[in-house]
Amino acid sequence: MARLRRLSTAQADFDARLAELLAFESAQDSQVEATVAAILADVKRRGDAAVLEYTRRFDGIDARTMSELELPTKRLEEALTRLPAEQRDALTQAAARIRAYHERQVQSSWSYTDGEGTLLGQQVTPLDRVGLYVPGGKAAYPSSVLMNALPAKVAGVPELVMVVPMPRGEQNELVLAAAAIAGVSRVFTIGGAQAVAALAYGTETIPQVDKIVGPGNAYVAAAKRRVFGVVGIDMVAGPSEILVVCDGSTAPDWIAMDLFSQAEHDELAQAILVSPDAAYIEAVAASIERLLPQMERQAVIRAALERRGALITVRDLDEACAIANRIAPEHLELSVEDPERWLPKIRHAGAIFLGKYTSEALGDYCAGPNHVLPTSRTARFSSPLGVYDFQKRSSVIRVRAAGASRLGRIAATLARGEGLQAHARSAELRVGEEGD
Amino acid sequence: MARLRRLSTAQADFDARLAELLAFESAQDSQVEATVAAILADVKRRGDAAVLEYTRRFDGIDARTMSELELPTKRLEEALTRLPAEQRDALTQAAARIRAYHERQVQSSWSYTDGEGTLLGQQVTPLDRVGLYVPGGKAAYPSSVLMNALPAKVAGVPELVMVVPMPRGEQNELVLAAAAIAGVSRVFTIGGAQAVAALAYGTETIPQVDKIVGPGNAYVAAAKRRVFGVVGIDMVAGPSEILVVCDGSTAPDWIAMDLFSQAEHDELAQAILVSPDAAYIEAVAASIERLLPQMERQAVIRAALERRGALITVRDLDEACAIANRIAPEHLELSVEDPERWLPKIRHAGAIFLGKYTSEALGDYCAGPNHVLPTSRTARFSSPLGVYDFQKRSSVIRVRAAGASRLGRIAATLARGEGLQAHARSAELRVGEEGD
Repeated sequence: MARLRRLSTAQADFDARLAELLAFESAQDSQVEATVAAILADVKRRGDAAVLEYTRRFDGIDARTMSELELPTKRLEEALTRLPAEQRDALTQAAARIRAYHERQVQSSWSYTDGEGTLLGQQVTPLDRVGLYVPGGKAAYPSSVLMNALPAKVAGVPELVMVVPMPRGEQNELVLAAAAIAGVSRVFTIGGAQAVAALAYGTETIPQVDKIVGPGNAYVAAAKRRVFGVVGIDMVAGPSEILVVCDGSTAPDWIAMDLFSQAEHDELAQAILVSPDAAYIEAVAASIERLLPQMERQAVIRAALERRGALITVRDLDEACAIANRIAPEHLELSVEDPERWLPKIRHAGAIFLGKYTSEALGDYCAGPNHVLPTSRTARFSSPLGVYDFQKRSSVIRVRAAGASRLGRIAATLARGEGLQAHARSAELRVGEEGD
Repeated sequence: MARLRRLSTAQADFDARLAELLAFESAQDSQVEATVAAILADVKRRGDAAVLEYTRRFDGIDARTMSELELPTKRLEEALTRLPAEQRDALTQAAARIRAYHERQVQSSWSYTDGEGTLLGQQVTPLDRVGLYVPGGKAAYPSSVLMNALPAKVAGVPELVMVVPMPRGEQNELVLAAAAIAGVSRVFTIGGAQAVAALAYGTETIPQVDKIVGPGNAYVAAAKRRVFGVVGIDMVAGPSEILVVCDGSTAPDWIAMDLFSQAEHDELAQAILVSPDAAYIEAVAASIERLLPQMERQAVIRAALERRGALITVRDLDEACAIANRIAPEHLELSVEDPERWLPKIRHAGAIFLGKYTSEALGDYCAGPNHVLPTSRTARFSSPLGVYDFQKRSSVIRVRAAGASRLGRIAATLARGEGLQAHARSAELRVGEEGD
């Protein structure tokens, strides 16, 4: 029996219970922080030598030079060629769909000229070089390689440096094949805080990147937080989450399995069902009981459901949408009839899956949108990983003589109001000039 | 005499000298960190009571209730009405130009449907509530209020909560007038880490926001770093920077004053001139000598120029552009003939000012683009503050029965490759179904 928490908006203390359910503090472990700070400082100072030493200590790889820790591109191609055809086709088709979707996100430079001939705009350019962190071992996901690398490629980033630890030499063929498909430039078999440091500061062998993306363990997350500012980073993700809003029209087994697909990630994952139909909620609970023993990862699923899962009865779908906005989930399934009707009511969610056929799993792999999504209510202010994370903008301004006179007077007035005389003088020197 | 550093790309050790010039480590003071951590935890736990206590202690304001620390909207309107007409007009015109420019940045929801009827897109929505930090005292800049608040308003953020400390009750009329023009919703006269905490966690009186923007001192910066994740934050800015690339065709006095306008911000500000014309560089140096004694903030300007300024001779403008990309400056003046010719060569800069009439000061106040720009080489991976910082995206996916079958098989193959059976089953349950 999975002991699933049941809540109802009819309960007087519902708000407090929901707040308790959502509470998740990503404790920053001071021991991890101290270890990471020391590794970062050491790699910054000693470069390759420090990376080799930590890789020996943590991954059990006794390399003498960094070149032993670089995989040649043809190794990636081999991995792709050797894959079973079904897997190769699946990866290739997923990559094509992800690429097509992300091509719609490309932003272009723009400008306009006002009445005085002042040119204003933004020049949009890709980052020069991006670092892609890929976890080793069991959490090595080829889909993550595609989702992190392809938006950078579509943005036009010329160089993509991947790091992936291979403790005791274990190589994940699917990950290498995905790197080949995604067009990764170079691959180093290093990981942990030392890999983040090498990418952030550069070493004799590893080029400094401008941004580091990709998931990792607590050490990797702490290292990314610390190097933020020296390089850009993507978000530091919390546990994965799904919120399913269902009107009762979807087969209960389907919804049960959708909840499982989130819960199987880890014991801290959060899977919540919200429905106005109390009988339907019990039908899904029954499906959960029946299907759980069939699952390979049933221990993890059960732990996640009991720890952070919930079945919530609401008055109606309007109230369900209000709860969705409060939760701001990473994944939101609107498994209802006429889902487009409810879409405009959703203000905060990483990804929204409309209608009963749209299982979250399709979005995780191959629908096209990115599976790197804001967690822990950060969808209130952040977005899925996208091409826009690998492009940046420079403001562009060209003022002609007439504009310099008119704008110069305004700027000088404001600058003097702020006590900044040199700003005022700099603007005033161009007032009253004639020219083009 | 200002002892200005002179460099030349002809020097054998130029790269090392340039690296040394650019080195700036924003030391994270552990005493500041500890103080801030304690204040954040206290405000999170005790809410208003803690805010009142810190405001008493740090700002010398003995308020008994938070309502004494809230300024009514009509107080802002009064400030605007009472301003001298010239200042009011300058603020109003600057605001109109900033608004017009930022309206070009608004992003809209988009979607498309593929051959199988799969709907894919992104729903773009504004943040619900934004907190705006405005420093008190001498560094209180009305232009900052406009630059931080207007993009949020243009994005459609319904609620803007401003905090501005008023130590010993000092009120800055220009700042309040700017808040009125920008349409700030509520103003609390609190500051420091306690104000950041109140916005991030919410108190009995102060509503929790989704993002905090605006500059502040070391305590404010440390507090913003710490609450990042609970709320969004804008960048944590380093010292201001200008790089002027000049072909020698601009009056030396103009360029000297442009360098001053950056240097007057503070002693850590960086002002650099790059030119292929060695004689012109000496002419600018002479202008600096002549003009410096006329400047109100000459002590600060001199300190900044001597500490972090430089005059750099290059072989040609191509080399100047390469150096600009390496420096990735916050502000870049291309004070050259035919500046559009060189624009495509610039990959990294916060804002680019084209031609001799376009002084940086115009961009600081009223040209239209934002003056909140990436510093300390972060233009390699980040952008000016913009409307896009106050909008976020949700992926939208709707798969129909046919798509669920085809995509379900791909997803299931990849999920099994990653050892995620529930993902595979969730997709497979929808394979082979018929429907709309």
